Amino acid sequence: MLATVLAASIAAAQAATPAAQTTTISPAAIQHATQLRDKAVADDTGYKIVESLTTEVGPRMAGSEADARAVAWAVAKFKSLGYDKVWTEPVTFPKWVRTSEHAQVLGDHAQPLTLTALGGSPGGTVEGEVVRFADLKSLQEAPAGSLKGKIAFIDVPMERAKDGSGYGMGSQIRGRGPSAAAKAGASAYLMRSAGTDSHRNPHTGITRFDDGLTPIPSAALATPDAEQLSRLVALGKPIRVKVALDVGWTGEATSYNVIGEMRGRSKPDEVVVIGGHLDSWDLGTGAIDDGAGVAIAMGAGKLIGDMKQRPARTIRVVAFANEEQGLYGGRAYAEKHGPDVRKHQIGAESDFGAGRIYAFSTGAPERALGAVKQIADVLAPLGIAYTPGEGGPGPDISPFAGNGLAWAALRQDGTDYFDYHHTPDDTLDKIDPKALAQNVAAYAVFAYLAADAQGDFGSEAKKVTPPRE
Amino acid sequence: MLATVLAASIAAAQAATPAAQTTTISPAAIQHATQLRDKAVADDTGYKIVESLTTEVGPRMAGSEADARAVAWAVAKFKSLGYDKVWTEPVTFPKWVRTSEHAQVLGDHAQPLTLTALGGSPGGTVEGEVVRFADLKSLQEAPAGSLKGKIAFIDVPMERAKDGSGYGMGSQIRGRGPSAAAKAGASAYLMRSAGTDSHRNPHTGITRFDDGLTPIPSAALATPDAEQLSRLVALGKPIRVKVALDVGWTGEATSYNVIGEMRGRSKPDEVVVIGGHLDSWDLGTGAIDDGAGVAIAMGAGKLIGDMKQRPARTIRVVAFANEEQGLYGGRAYAEKHGPDVRKHQIGAESDFGAGRIYAFSTGAPERALGAVKQIADVLAPLGIAYTPGEGGPGPDISPFAGNGLAWAALRQDGTDYFDYHHTPDDTLDKIDPKALAQNVAAYAVFAYLAADAQGDFGSEAKKVTPPRE
Repeated sequence: MLATVLAASIAAAQAATPAAQTTTISPAAIQHATQLRDKAVADDTGYKIVESLTTEVGPRMAGSEADARAVAWAVAKFKSLGYDKVWTEPVTFPKWVRTSEHAQVLGDHAQPLTLTALGGSPGGTVEGEVVRFADLKSLQEAPAGSLKGKIAFIDVPMERAKDGSGYGMGSQIRGRGPSAAAKAGASAYLMRSAGTDSHRNPHTGITRFDDGLTPIPSAALATPDAEQLSRLVALGKPIRVKVALDVGWTGEATSYNVIGEMRGRSKPDEVVVIGGHLDSWDLGTGAIDDGAGVAIAMGAGKLIGDMKQRPARTIRVVAFANEEQGLYGGRAYAEKHGPDVRKHQIGAESDFGAGRIYAFSTGAPERALGAVKQIADVLAPLGIAYTPGEGGPGPDISPFAGNGLAWAALRQDGTDYFDYHHTPDDTLDKIDPKALAQNVAAYAVFAYLAADAQGDFGSEAKKVTPPRE
Repeated sequence: MLATVLAASIAAAQAATPAAQTTTISPAAIQHATQLRDKAVADDTGYKIVESLTTEVGPRMAGSEADARAVAWAVAKFKSLGYDKVWTEPVTFPKWVRTSEHAQVLGDHAQPLTLTALGGSPGGTVEGEVVRFADLKSLQEAPAGSLKGKIAFIDVPMERAKDGSGYGMGSQIRGRGPSAAAKAGASAYLMRSAGTDSHRNPHTGITRFDDGLTPIPSAALATPDAEQLSRLVALGKPIRVKVALDVGWTGEATSYNVIGEMRGRSKPDEVVVIGGHLDSWDLGTGAIDDGAGVAIAMGAGKLIGDMKQRPARTIRVVAFANEEQGLYGGRAYAEKHGPDVRKHQIGAESDFGAGRIYAFSTGAPERALGAVKQIADVLAPLGIAYTPGEGGPGPDISPFAGNGLAWAALRQDGTDYFDYHHTPDDTLDKIDPKALAQNVAAYAVFAYLAADAQGDFGSEAKKVTPPRE
């Protein structure tokens, strides 16, 4: 919804700019992209990249020792794939660490509970009676001090949806629940995981506390544990729980956006930028979030680089640093490259798993829509619909898109994404190699054709409200 | 296969005994059982029992504080369900405890591995290079001393099957792998979980060491972790792993078989015995293994107890102690009640989850097969096929069946059972209330008709090889 509003505001802004050349794509380019597509769907380059990253590096939380290994892996992988130019750009952020986390019901029904600290939670060991809330609003309406010494618990199931729309409420409960609990005086915060599975694998993810509040230990229960706690509370007796989190912020860390380029044949200073994020949460091995995105973009660039005739413009692949804790890599990229926005033909990020792409759209202005439709026509045999006006830029592209970068959306089927997202279960076995190849094919087609178009897709310095937080 | 052999040997033994009365069931009993069946499939007594046990007690490993609470729960639950007589019988066994368990890959590919100690494993912290074996036989053939200082790792996927047949190899790898590793000099043993899922929830289960061996720390990796470790080993460099298990045997514990009876109307001293086991592993809440079995048997007895006309014989429901670590409750029951074998009309245990029952059979002799067919006919509308010659007694019934107890098998669909078996994921949400009600209905029909039959099903003191270890 938000993305649609953004697209409209960009279109309105663009209507006011002077008329420019109509963007078109040559028949030769269409032919090359069609061949590229058919080669890519039968190619396992992408799968081998994500297998390598998730196996050899494994979990790689921003700022960790493994994150540094991931940066070295990305540099080496770009080079081994034959990228023409490979470099890093530093990204600095606060460092958060997880050492251990435990919880248990105390008393007559003593038993362990499976949970995981939310990113950004402080550490601490708390015992208290659980007060259950059926939604975020109820907790937000709890009077100040009413939860003194208690543990606030929100138990809201998340709905499964192809487009991931159920995550809206889930991420709000994660982002805003802890502050609401702290305001009401609670000594800790528990939530049912923002996930669609029913396994003992809780879903982590970043949270933040409003200014002026003293942060409280905050964690997500696995779905079966949230249901168990609700049943225990429903017995009608006070249920006391102990939560022990050894986690917290500890200084600053510097990681890197890792960038590889396949040089364009005639306009090498102009780039189509595609990417994913290199960091992951620590619980799984970051296969679907976002090893897949890195592999899709790296793999697409590799296949374009191998073509007999490169596109006019350069393909730039970015493995973004620290997306998970606040789009640090995406913001750093936007800041550093903002002055060059007009040299960025268009950008797209893959960060919604490894499901098949089912829809394509862009935020491009009227003059480019013919070329967009040409791209859509080459994507169509991959099972991808052209859905103008829907979607939005991926998270790490969004800060720059907010400042005028033209963007495309290659929307993935996220029906199962929130079964694994941010859990220990985000591992390589959750990726279907054929679906990943379809993604690589789509990104390759899109990037190739956008890079070879005559004319632009609307990148232009401007100031609009960023589409996503 | 083993069970088929047993059935044949029992039949042969019975052919040699003097001819007895043909067993029959009255038309009135058939009518009552049909009504009972139709009431039971729409009744939630069984689900409420398993909800209560798994919620209020939770995990209840044999000998733990929670196991004692489970015994108290069972006594109270039998009483609240209106059982006429409730008592306990002590069961003593060695006590094994799990405090913590961790593992990690060391070196260039440092990352945590998710595992769980096998029941019976000693504790210890071990570092060593991993040597992978593709099957149990290869490890068993490793020369003595050849794995000195190494960690043996067997990686065999388990096949999914309705009848759980894939577990045969899985449980062998768990039971015999540790001794094979110790014989070859390994300092620790790892196996891919005996399970059919692909989640970060490893499968525990009992193991034992051959006499004369020094036990070594032994654990099961979650499926994704086993695959990850195999991929790491396949990189071709030595892969070192650290395994730290704080677990082990610690003295003896006494728990209890908890028994409830619904008194028969005319032959109250003779019993049909049905049951499940009360203990569970500690990782999940023991919903499918075996809260479901306890609930099915307790629920069936309750519905029979509520009938206007009770069956001739008594329905005895047993919640067996410590099945998981060696059938201690089943053995204790067989030992104590062995002299009364002829007063046991027939026995059946539910210990294969909460899937629908799809097949019925017994080990009864020729003279009882008419009555068995009568029972099968009342079960048929529940989707249950009569499959003579297949199946065998449940684990806790098997020691007594080996000594002559007549047994029935109500075989459950175990297609998904090994996705959850012995894992943290064995929780209430994995039970379909309708499937559980079908189980209760089947057990109620079987127990009622067997208890009201004229004549017997072949219980007689004898000595045959126990059908299962």
